[in-house]
Order: sequence, then C-alpha cells, then structure tokens
Amino acid sequence: MIVGVIGAGQLARMMIPAAVELGIELRVLAEADGMSAELAAVGVGDYRDRDAVLSFADTVDVLTFDHEHVPQEILRELVERGVAVHPGPDALLYAQDKLLMRERLAELGLPVPDWARVEDADALAVFLADHGGRAVVKTPRGGYDGKGVRVVRSAAEVDDWFASLAGDGDALLVEELVDFSRELAQQVARRPSGEIVAWPLVETVQADGVCSEVIAPAPRSAGRLSDVAVQIAVAVAEGIGVTGALAVELFETTDGRLLINELAMRPHNSGHWSIDGSITSQFEQHLRAVLDLPLGSTEPHAEWSVMVNILGGPSEGSLADRYASALSQHPSVKVHNYGKAPRPGRKVGHVTAVGDDLDDVTYQARAAAAHFGD
Amino acid sequence: MIVGVIGAGQLARMMIPAAVELGIELRVLAEADGMSAELAAVGVGDYRDRDAVLSFADTVDVLTFDHEHVPQEILRELVERGVAVHPGPDALLYAQDKLLMRERLAELGLPVPDWARVEDADALAVFLADHGGRAVVKTPRGGYDGKGVRVVRSAAEVDDWFASLAGDGDALLVEELVDFSRELAQQVARRPSGEIVAWPLVETVQADGVCSEVIAPAPRSAGRLSDVAVQIAVAVAEGIGVTGALAVELFETTDGRLLINELAMRPHNSGHWSIDGSITSQFEQHLRAVLDLPLGSTEPHAEWSVMVNILGGPSEGSLADRYASALSQHPSVKVHNYGKAPRPGRKVGHVTAVGDDLDDVTYQARAAAAHFGD
Repeated sequence: MIVGVIGAGQLARMMIPAAVELGIELRVLAEADGMSAELAAVGVGDYRDRDAVLSFADTVDVLTFDHEHVPQEILRELVERGVAVHPGPDALLYAQDKLLMRERLAELGLPVPDWARVEDADALAVFLADHGGRAVVKTPRGGYDGKGVRVVRSAAEVDDWFASLAGDGDALLVEELVDFSRELAQQVARRPSGEIVAWPLVETVQADGVCSEVIAPAPRSAGRLSDVAVQIAVAVAEGIGVTGALAVELFETTDGRLLINELAMRPHNSGHWSIDGSITSQFEQHLRAVLDLPLGSTEPHAEWSVMVNILGGPSEGSLADRYASALSQHPSVKVHNYGKAPRPGRKVGHVTAVGDDLDDVTYQARAAAAHFGD
Repeated sequence: MIVGVIGAGQLARMMIPAAVELGIELRVLAEADGMSAELAAVGVGDYRDRDAVLSFADTVDVLTFDHEHVPQEILRELVERGVAVHPGPDALLYAQDKLLMRERLAELGLPVPDWARVEDADALAVFLADHGGRAVVKTPRGGYDGKGVRVVRSAAEVDDWFASLAGDGDALLVEELVDFSRELAQQVARRPSGEIVAWPLVETVQADGVCSEVIAPAPRSAGRLSDVAVQIAVAVAEGIGVTGALAVELFETTDGRLLINELAMRPHNSGHWSIDGSITSQFEQHLRAVLDLPLGSTEPHAEWSVMVNILGGPSEGSLADRYASALSQHPSVKVHNYGKAPRPGRKVGHVTAVGDDLDDVTYQARAAAAHFGD
C-alpha cells in the first residue's frame, strides 16, 4: 500500500501519522526542500511538470494531493495511463474553477448564493445593480484563504482582474453578498466504491479571510441544520464524484438557510479538530478512502472540540520556544506544529482542546494558542 | 528539537506520529535496513559500536532508546561528553541487569518477590527447598518476552545457564513462584527536572510469556490498589532516577499485595492503549519527558480501552490484506501495523478499542485482532 501525495504542505505532513499507524507507505512529491511534509518526501518536483508527476506516479499505488492545483491535462494523462488518481480530474475540475463549480452545483439543484459569470465591467455593474450595490467578485482559479476574493461596490474595483482575463470567454465569478449569521463546514469522505461517511457539522470562524477557529460540532446545529448539511455534502460528493475527503464550506443565512460557499477536495482546515477529537481523523480517513478501504467511525471523543489556528507564530524564535509555558499551563491541549518558519499570517500550527464543557474547551484552546503569538 | 533514538523497532516507529505532531525532529539509528521505524532512520549502526553511537549522538539534542541494551561503557562516555541521555546509564543499569534491579528495589524497600542470587546449582537447590520445590530462574541480562526465564523444579533444569556463567561472581537470579491472581502494569513518565505523571493502572494478559492483551484501567483497581501501584512506580522512578517513560510490571497476589516483576525504561507494550485511549500517549509523553518539556494529561478518552496484540500475523500475505474485512466489521477499532513481516509469535501490530462498555470494547478489540491471524 503506497500512497503518493503531490505537495508537501501541512496537509501532507498530517497524513504521516495516520500512514505510520496503518502501515501505509507515504511518498510525497515536494515543491521544494524543507517543506512541512519533508519527512515523507521522496523527491522535489513541480506539480505542473508532466514528466516529474508521471515518474512520481509510477512509484505509487494511489495518487492523491495536498492541494488541488495539478493541471487537468496532467491528471487526465495519469488516468489514461491507468494510475489510480483520487480525487480524479472530473471532480477536481470543480475545485480548480469556481465558475464551473457554481454551474455544476446549480445543475445539481444545490443551494448556492446568487451568482453570475461576468466577462466585463458592464456585466458586473448589472449584477451589482440587481443586488443592492454590493457583491463578492472572485477569480475562478488560484484563490484560497481570502486571496482572489474582493467585496466590491463598483465594477472599477476589479478593473485589474478584468484587464488580466485571457479573452476567449474567460470571465470572473460574481456572487451576492450573503446575509449570513455564521459560517459552517460539512466534511465527508467517500470511497471509489461508494461508501460515504460524514463528520459532525462544524462552525468555522474566519479572521481576514483565513480560518482562525473551528467548533465541532457547530453549536445549535443538532437536528434539521445538521441533516441538511450532510444531505448537501453527500449530494456534492456523489454528484461530482469526489473520492477522498471533501469539505463543503457553508453560509448559514440569517433566515436559516444553508448556501454552499466553497469546496475543498482534500483534508481541510475545518477538519483538523478530528485528529484529536474524533475516532477517525480526516487524514486517516482520506488515506483509507483513496485506497478504497472501509471507512472509520467519525464519532467524537467528547461533546466538544475546539481548534484554534496558530497564525503567524512568534515574531522571534520558534513555536517550540513557547512549549514550556503553553504545555505547562494547558496539559490537556494538543499542540500541532507544522515545522514551518513563523511569518505574519502564515498557518504554522494549530491547537485543539476536547471535552464536555464548551466554555472551558474554548478557553483552553484559545489560551494555549495565544502562547504562540506575540 | 532533535531527538535521537537508538534502535528502530516498533517503539521507535510509534514515536514518529507524536514527533510529527509536535514538530520534533526524530532521528533513528537503525540496527539494519527495513526496520519498523525506517521512515525516521538516518543511518544504520550497531548499538554496541562506540563510534557509531557517538557520531550519531553528535547530531541530536537528546538521546533516547527503543530498547535498553546499549552497553554501559558507551552510555557513560556519552554522558561524559555532555550528551543528554534519557534515561541515563545509572537508571538503565537496573533495566539491563535483573540482579542489580532486585538488589536496588530491595534497598528502596519496595515490594518484590522473594529472590536470591545463585552462583551454582547447590545454591539454587537450597532456594527451591525453601520455596516449595518450584521457582523462576532468570538470566540477569538479555531476557525479554519470556526469553531468559524458566520455571524449574530442579537445579538441573538450568545446568546450561550455570555452565555459561562467566565466573567472577557471575550469577543467576532465582525468584519465588508468586501466587498471583493477575498481572498489572503501572506506567509513569518523569522529566529530568522532576515532574512525574502516571497513567491509570492496567491489567496485562500474557500468552506464552508474551503480552497478548491490556485492559485500561485494570478492572476492580480503583482506590487502594491503584494508589499503591502509583506509589510504587513513583518510588521506582525517583529512587532509580528514571527519565522518560517507565513501566513497572506487577503481580497482584492472591492475598491482595502488589509485587514488582519487571521494569521497562522506555515506552512499553502495556502502554500502547494510550495512543488511542489517553489524551497524551506514552510516545508523546516519552518525547516530552526526554526533552524536559511539561508533561501532558494522562486522562483517558473513555472509561475503557482494550489493546490486543497482533502476534505472528497471517501465515500468507500481509496484515493489509485483512483490512477490507477487519475495518468494515470494526469501524471504531484502531489498527496499528508495525510494517514488519509476519512470523509466528512476532509482535507485528496491535488493535485498540475505546468506549464505555467493557464487554463491547473487549469484543471489538479481540474480534478485530482475530482478522489478522489465520
């Protein structure tokens, strides 16, 4: 059982413990030396380099990803050569292009914000006029963690993006500014043979467009909200044919509806809590799913898990310099250090607290994480 | 934070996940290629080879072990050179030599079976006569998992061992055959700066001298039994100056006393349940302890954890061949595969089940483990 991972960031890194426990050999194709998943790296190569990816794929049983950016033409050639690629190109297409994703979700009849494909400023101006003068504009490709996303009041605010369109029907995505009370995420994992499991619906808190905190399960979500979220995520996974882990980011609107925001077809920040808070972590489950092995229980260890990202880290020294204080004051909190150099805004680690008292769990996670800032 | 581990068996392997999560760099000196902890191996070397060990030690911040067999003279030279060695030679001495261990525990006033140092068959015959005609004879060095241990009715049964004594006061250890109702193990971890934590007392079940099953906590152990076990283990750790993980194997006698059987100064089979069943696993705790970092909570995730060893594995094929059946029937059980080739009696993996119903947890762990045999 050899699983190859393209990309060596923290998501690939966090697959290592699960792979070691299950006796799965993990081979990572890293973007550069010194990446987060270096321990399992067997080589350095560019994921856009056909030859590098193809020869890496020859050494593994199943190919999967730390990110969604491997070009379609390389993915399709891999599949033609008989490589087991999970998720496959037909699914990844919708993670790579937000316009295609919106079109496909609409076809599937799934709830999404109002949206339009806009090729020029005039079209965007029409959408703005129809939606109260404000909207969210997104570049269909390449955005993540708030990049490639702007809230605008006039079409001129994305003149630069329109100017850089390639022509040929190239366009931007515009979406209504959803009136939401909070953001949620529903994670599922699906095997090629069809088995699918869901974790509890979680609440995600963003700061400056980056996930800062996750509460599992989402407070006040038992019953209808949770059922609808699972139905949506299952419909996406099956409708698009996702294999492996899928995270569906959702808005809960002020009038109680759920609308799909983004999709991630890989382990996702909203599921990091599961390493310490669930019987089967998203990383173990992703490996089981891409290998088409039976999926594990997603039952939580306790009523609540709270995950707080360590964003940036200390301006001097390393995360480890803070262990003496953080670990002594918070002996029940689990600290995850991605082995990355601190840099403002960078995700360099996270902490998770698990227990039956939400206030205490939240306090423990936030207070422990605070030791790793300035 | 670089921790070096001498020896690349499954104990070193199971340190990898904890090291990855905490951002600790683990460097393993393997006995050979293809060992269980190969992923973290940085070289191959004999632990009895002074130069190999010394040059390995130069590349790490702290040195620790997968086993207790590094010769004293090498350990002492490391300490003289300023290497942080945990556990240190003064403690390891008692794990390496059972006669010295019995002497030291007796000095500390700790409860041990009746024992004697016997240099010849006559001395052994006297001990036998004084203890009902039966006793346990042990070679002071090199025994584990039932090796180097014989239950005898006459001194002639260990003639070969007496014949191979080196002279010069070399001797065997003889102990009374303890009338015990069950075997228990108390695990603690201790930092060089003194902090010490204990996991719950566990019950261990042996088959043919090899651990087959562990129940955490030991049934009917709350209160006095558990308190005494912790007092004993803490007294051993402090009395001998153990740093890192310490397992104290105990007999519970039919008249309700606890007697010390063996010591292990490293992560131990009796603590594998803690990977899935405790907030801090013995492997994470060992790394924290040897780095002199604050120790983590040893609180369990649920009322019961049962760990069952996979001994031998299937006579044909690999453990992974059994995943489809084992994982589909037992989605809540955690399977640990040491990446070792199956061989009769060999510890090749373990499974752990965690939950609040002991009967169900025991059934799940045993039934899942059974998938990996013939």
